[in-house]
Amino acid sequence: MMVTAALLVLPLIVSIIYKEDCYTAFLLSIGISLAIGFPLMIFCKTEDRVIYAKEGFVIVALSWLSMSAIGALPFFLSGEIPNYVDAFFETVSGFTTTGASILTNVEALSHGMLFWRCFTNWVGGMGVLVFVMAIIPASTDRSIHILRAEVPGPIVGKLVPKMRDTAIILYLIYIVLTVIEFILLLAGGMPLFDSIVHSFATAGTGGFGIKNDSFASYNPYIQWVVTAFMFIFGVNFNLYYLLITKKFRSILKSEELWIYIGLYAVAICVIAFNISGLYDNFGDNIRASAFQVATVISTAGFATADFNLWPELSKTIILILMFVGACAGSTAGGFKLTRIIMLFKVIKREIKGLIHPRAVGVVRFEGKKVDDDVVKSLCAYFAIYTMTFFGIFILLSFDGYDILTNFSAAASCFNNIGPGLAAVGPASNYAGYSVFSKLVLSLAMLLGRLEIYPILFVLSRNAWSKK
Amino acid sequence: MMVTAALLVLPLIVSIIYKEDCYTAFLLSIGISLAIGFPLMIFCKTEDRVIYAKEGFVIVALSWLSMSAIGALPFFLSGEIPNYVDAFFETVSGFTTTGASILTNVEALSHGMLFWRCFTNWVGGMGVLVFVMAIIPASTDRSIHILRAEVPGPIVGKLVPKMRDTAIILYLIYIVLTVIEFILLLAGGMPLFDSIVHSFATAGTGGFGIKNDSFASYNPYIQWVVTAFMFIFGVNFNLYYLLITKKFRSILKSEELWIYIGLYAVAICVIAFNISGLYDNFGDNIRASAFQVATVISTAGFATADFNLWPELSKTIILILMFVGACAGSTAGGFKLTRIIMLFKVIKREIKGLIHPRAVGVVRFEGKKVDDDVVKSLCAYFAIYTMTFFGIFILLSFDGYDILTNFSAAASCFNNIGPGLAAVGPASNYAGYSVFSKLVLSLAMLLGRLEIYPILFVLSRNAWSKK
Repeated sequence: MMVTAALLVLPLIVSIIYKEDCYTAFLLSIGISLAIGFPLMIFCKTEDRVIYAKEGFVIVALSWLSMSAIGALPFFLSGEIPNYVDAFFETVSGFTTTGASILTNVEALSHGMLFWRCFTNWVGGMGVLVFVMAIIPASTDRSIHILRAEVPGPIVGKLVPKMRDTAIILYLIYIVLTVIEFILLLAGGMPLFDSIVHSFATAGTGGFGIKNDSFASYNPYIQWVVTAFMFIFGVNFNLYYLLITKKFRSILKSEELWIYIGLYAVAICVIAFNISGLYDNFGDNIRASAFQVATVISTAGFATADFNLWPELSKTIILILMFVGACAGSTAGGFKLTRIIMLFKVIKREIKGLIHPRAVGVVRFEGKKVDDDVVKSLCAYFAIYTMTFFGIFILLSFDGYDILTNFSAAASCFNNIGPGLAAVGPASNYAGYSVFSKLVLSLAMLLGRLEIYPILFVLSRNAWSKK
Repeated sequence: MMVTAALLVLPLIVSIIYKEDCYTAFLLSIGISLAIGFPLMIFCKTEDRVIYAKEGFVIVALSWLSMSAIGALPFFLSGEIPNYVDAFFETVSGFTTTGASILTNVEALSHGMLFWRCFTNWVGGMGVLVFVMAIIPASTDRSIHILRAEVPGPIVGKLVPKMRDTAIILYLIYIVLTVIEFILLLAGGMPLFDSIVHSFATAGTGGFGIKNDSFASYNPYIQWVVTAFMFIFGVNFNLYYLLITKKFRSILKSEELWIYIGLYAVAICVIAFNISGLYDNFGDNIRASAFQVATVISTAGFATADFNLWPELSKTIILILMFVGACAGSTAGGFKLTRIIMLFKVIKREIKGLIHPRAVGVVRFEGKKVDDDVVKSLCAYFAIYTMTFFGIFILLSFDGYDILTNFSAAASCFNNIGPGLAAVGPASNYAGYSVFSKLVLSLAMLLGRLEIYPILFVLSRNAWSKK
């Protein structure tokens, strides 16, 4: 609550600078946040409790839910999003870095609100609690359970022995990269405000923009910069740490990085050929293809073209890429490339085992043997990921939309991308869904961002038993 | 080759009884089959070789491919399916018990061809090689590897110590159930020929019919009988063995059976309510819902209604059920309910492990502890199943159809069902796909029926190395 209140100060300042009326909405929201937060802080102060996995789950899930509930207030109170469920959807979409919107006309929002939307992308990208860990000196090494529950990926390691230092390093990398993008955008002729908010939204691979056509009306240079940074923010941040510590060899030996690059290359080329004829020249094909591929793999969700109008092959590739996601340890959502690579290795081991029953199969990743427990968890995660996806898909089908809309909406929200296909394509939005479906999709976004378990756990009886 | 020639004698007789010209096509096909088979038998006779998993895979995959190639000859030679690729597709669809067709007008086929189509369903249902094992006395216990590769399901056990006896018992159950259905259909006023071929097609959960509207024009009694038998042939055959040996308690304790029944009940009820308004009364709703649910879960693929015209919720449920499949050890295709139940247990174990890290989790199924190796194989199979499905989906998208058509065509063929949605719905067929796509779908059907590994293995270098 206190952190949310602090975060809301920034858009408050923006709205005051632009002399907009919505500053009262921010003030009020800060007030409400403090009014709930202060008593909780004073009356519920317990001794330093040990944080186990269970507590980690509950802390993360409840923090994200309450942050979203409070974060939705400015939209609602200012009347810019008159319906609270819509405002909640928009805020969840922001914090989970999804970028799905219920707004038909984004350009009608005030600067303060536009800033807040994109800022939630940025905050949600690295994780709010990781941020808290970085600034609060008291965080012990037990907070690894919070990092585990909040940072996406199958293996969460510490960069340096101390938890807090790891969090600080991650945030520093994050901030520096954001600033570089900001400067490059500004240099490309993008207005100051646009550069700031777009840098935020790219860094968190969020995808909130401030124009109705997202990036279509910006110049090619800017589109390429954003494409590059979507790629960059989809890379495992550990590699940047290796870059700083000059361990270039380890970077080049990263399997995941090469497969990540390869995936981009193949997808961009196939789509660029497939959409030839839709654009004037091959350069434009490549640019449109690269931007849209980056937006889906990095799970950002911006757009320079309506891929809904592309040929079926391109649409199919985009639909499938929605599930892939980028590297673990990045700000991207999705199932994560890391996991897919490891699944392929599990398959390979199984086939080897079938042919040579006595051979002992080992799964190796990045040169190291993967622990059997990690493989088990990976397989279980794959199963629960698939089941959860189909659950969301079924719940959405109670609404009147066609199957492709529901399937892609579920895929897009669950993987924190933003736009889907058909009725929820890049040129449209989620406003048409019922209140029930909007809540289902909000839940889907949280499930996707926090990798299912924390949310599922809080919804289960187990979390609330005294045992 | 020799077995295929033998099998072709039956439709030959049928075509002679009906005094149809197509008997020459059957004669010619038998001739070709023998002409290839005899020399192979004489010249390639090797000593009794030990059959390991590797050999099991190769034997099964090559047998199915050659059977399909020969089995397509009658259609092609008689000119009733003028294109050989189409004839191949139709035959693969038959042997794999898929029931997908490229025929726009089934009723134009001669009786001999109609019989052959449905007979391939029946032969493919239990497995051709299991049949061979049952009739050839020489089959040793090492042929378990053939049974493993041909009979679907995660755990293939022997009912009785001797391999050959197991195969005989399975076939006896299969034949008796087919005969019972035949008698019940005949009693319901279905003509003799129709009763025979439909019993074949139901038993193999194949789905080939002889009318353009499948079962829509038959009376409600007949529709209910077929619904019941689709259900019956989707049950694990081990349970029928338990029934014969009067172990009723074990049957009632079968988790899989209860979940199978529950799945039917829930799906039938939800769809029946969802489609109310489309039919005259609730009884008709239930009948239409039950038939279509049974046809998808059992992966038969008949139809009494065009579910393509049903509301989105019903279509979504049907699409998802396509992946579920029925019980292991039945003639049904799909991923198999058994595996899904076990995956849920793996998820449960994982969640428990996350909360109580020191607890040792055990997966139990049907009251017994599931071996860790089986769990590993299950997870690997789930991964390869998903990847293969997406591979087929991408390959189909090179054709001009929309995403839903391609997705459902891939799902339907890979899971050996038959009809899909949109352009390949129950009221249409696969004729519109390109030659390339038809071959991809034929491969998909074989991959699905033989549970991926044998086909994948034969396509790999590994199968052909001397090592």
